Amino acid sequence: MTARKEFNRLTAAEAAAAIAGGELKAADLMASCLDRVADREPFVHAFQRLDADAARAAAERADSSQPKGPLHGVPFVAKDIIDTADFPTGWGSPVHAERRPGRDASCIQLLKDAGAILVGKSVTTEFACFHPGPTANPRNLAHTPGGSSSGSAAAVADFMVPFALGTQTSGSLVRPGAFCGVLAYKPTHGDFDLDGVMGVAASLDTLGGFARSVDDLMLLRRALCPNLGRAHTVSGWRPRIALMRGPHWAEGSMEMRDVCERALAVLADAGAAVGELSTPEIFLDLSARQKIIMTYETARARIFEYRRHRDRISAAFAEIVEAGLATSHDDYASALDAADRARRVHDAQFLEFDVILSPAAAGEAPKGLHATGDPLYSRGWTLLHAPLVSVPAGIGPNGLPLSVQLVGRRNADDVLLQAARWIAPRLDPGLPEPD
Amino acid sequence: MTARKEFNRLTAAEAAAAIAGGELKAADLMASCLDRVADREPFVHAFQRLDADAARAAAERADSSQPKGPLHGVPFVAKDIIDTADFPTGWGSPVHAERRPGRDASCIQLLKDAGAILVGKSVTTEFACFHPGPTANPRNLAHTPGGSSSGSAAAVADFMVPFALGTQTSGSLVRPGAFCGVLAYKPTHGDFDLDGVMGVAASLDTLGGFARSVDDLMLLRRALCPNLGRAHTVSGWRPRIALMRGPHWAEGSMEMRDVCERALAVLADAGAAVGELSTPEIFLDLSARQKIIMTYETARARIFEYRRHRDRISAAFAEIVEAGLATSHDDYASALDAADRARRVHDAQFLEFDVILSPAAAGEAPKGLHATGDPLYSRGWTLLHAPLVSVPAGIGPNGLPLSVQLVGRRNADDVLLQAARWIAPRLDPGLPEPD
Repeated sequence: MTARKEFNRLTAAEAAAAIAGGELKAADLMASCLDRVADREPFVHAFQRLDADAARAAAERADSSQPKGPLHGVPFVAKDIIDTADFPTGWGSPVHAERRPGRDASCIQLLKDAGAILVGKSVTTEFACFHPGPTANPRNLAHTPGGSSSGSAAAVADFMVPFALGTQTSGSLVRPGAFCGVLAYKPTHGDFDLDGVMGVAASLDTLGGFARSVDDLMLLRRALCPNLGRAHTVSGWRPRIALMRGPHWAEGSMEMRDVCERALAVLADAGAAVGELSTPEIFLDLSARQKIIMTYETARARIFEYRRHRDRISAAFAEIVEAGLATSHDDYASALDAADRARRVHDAQFLEFDVILSPAAAGEAPKGLHATGDPLYSRGWTLLHAPLVSVPAGIGPNGLPLSVQLVGRRNADDVLLQAARWIAPRLDPGLPEPD
Repeated sequence: MTARKEFNRLTAAEAAAAIAGGELKAADLMASCLDRVADREPFVHAFQRLDADAARAAAERADSSQPKGPLHGVPFVAKDIIDTADFPTGWGSPVHAERRPGRDASCIQLLKDAGAILVGKSVTTEFACFHPGPTANPRNLAHTPGGSSSGSAAAVADFMVPFALGTQTSGSLVRPGAFCGVLAYKPTHGDFDLDGVMGVAASLDTLGGFARSVDDLMLLRRALCPNLGRAHTVSGWRPRIALMRGPHWAEGSMEMRDVCERALAVLADAGAAVGELSTPEIFLDLSARQKIIMTYETARARIFEYRRHRDRISAAFAEIVEAGLATSHDDYASALDAADRARRVHDAQFLEFDVILSPAAAGEAPKGLHATGDPLYSRGWTLLHAPLVSVPAGIGPNGLPLSVQLVGRRNADDVLLQAARWIAPRLDPGLPEPD
């Protein structure tokens, strides 16, 4: 076991195994995580709410009780658009700063059932859109952590907690995962239940999470999808991987293109069957269609806040609502229809390949905390309802992470995660640790 | 104009036109509706919450202000799983009886934007599932109004309000509409935003409504779908209608089968092109698959209530959660996959026909208030995400309504509503009015 102050660097799977094996006390793990939070939170600003005393007490209760499940005693945080009985859930807006839902969202209760301990709520951008919160990128405090699941990505990257919950409507898991250099997992749309999670755009919203190992993402999935079958693992299995450059290849940085091509070569060398898929015609305007759908639906979902509390919403968010209210229902409906057709095209691509490899973001996290970067590289995949894993694969010119995005067939999350488990350690760029 | 005490019998479209034309005061309409509520509520029990003073005040404000929209001054009620700023929203459960969401759901704000006035919250079954509330069928108080949108259907059938909001996960709009003898409209899945509406099973949940004229359903749709294009109306247009008996034809009553076949004949006589469609093979187990999906998802969505408040949930509801927790994720995922394939088969049926006509329920509303009847005839259509309109078309042996269910292509709600507008008056059975 590492020295006490290092317990916070364990993955959820490692920590849970150590606790279950009697080698580690949940209270010591929690103390180590809270020490890290105390050291770093003044700079990182990952937390919207934190109750250290309650977390310590819960860890002590975990130590004196029978193991509840596979995450017994493991701390986590949840994006502040996810309802919790013990904390207000403020949606990243002063309008709802003291909103008290009085119950735990389904995902929170299921994680508690698995034994995990909720430490606090993590910063989200305003209404999980673009107006940023105070969170900084733990790998370089002058750079954005990405958004909208900013605090969750930063907390995991900074070793404050081993895993965290976030959501994605455009690229709000994949992008902060890439910018902060941690794994991000967006399941197939609908696969994790959204009960108690603020809706942004219902056709797109997906609950997911961040972790530092694929095993942890698998544990998360097992906790949130009751009665998941055992994965069929074949010894020596190697994924078949197709590079798809996608419609925005040329718009990204050279280092992003490099990291994707290099990743494919590394994985081929390691024994994976690799190839390329050209971008289907129908994918070319998916990003534009995703924007239409998101704007239309976000305007509707936030119409109460826009009408009744316009003085307390940002100008940037008001513009989104106004754009949505000006979007025609015909355009919205044809975007939905095109997405439905594109999903079938997407699924049909997985005959010869298990996963698609594509860029996760345009490049490194941009400088400045006034914006969270562009979700362009995930908009289309999110609209396709495809499961995604963002995997660190390189280091950019500013010393910040570069990631690739693994894309699966709809409802083939198990295959995607197995592939990610084979791929992630082989691409590990050996990122310098946060301070 | 009818005598004052009869204003409550106007449809929303008639009332809004009269108010806009200066022939009717919103305050008089409201007074008439509230008189009706005062007379009948002690027997019907449609309301979970009612604020008559606030409703009167809002109507007076409407009379002294510029028209806000096409429903200016028109009263409505909303199922008590829909969040409201002015009323608690209790989900039909003692667990959340005093739950105060502190904001209006998107649908409520959009209706207020259109000028409509929320009078109160209507009774829902427990968590919008099967355990009934106190509501009686206004056409015969000894019979169930159906569920789960019990109070909304009863309030509209009983002339308490011209229209009401409800939701459907299995058959919770179509069935109470049929049992109470009013029109019910379930849009294409996702077409009305569910922001602020309690989730039951996200893959199935659909917001919709009840009214006494198809014009009102069209007004509702226009209010909840901003920037809807003008419908293309061709003069003399007549819908092409296909009878589909469906997988449960033989399980229903003789009078239900009669009413469907008679409806087809009546519509053919009136000049519609009619025909029959056989039930596609892939539809045969849709009801079973819908049950698997609903049970799995409902268990997940209510896991907090089940774990933390089991003493205050019904035995019937606890059984649903337990069945869901025992359902395998593999069965759930293959049901979702089959549904996806069946949706394409469904859409492909609308080349020669505009709407499908099928049974809305097994027959008349069953006697007794201890159960709300069987959603069997809507489970499959709901899983297909198809838009539905339930239309009164006959009178059964107990003098209670019998309805047919009109089914449209996904995202062709405009065509479905236009067809319903042509069909409904031609099938009007001349139901005896509630007392």
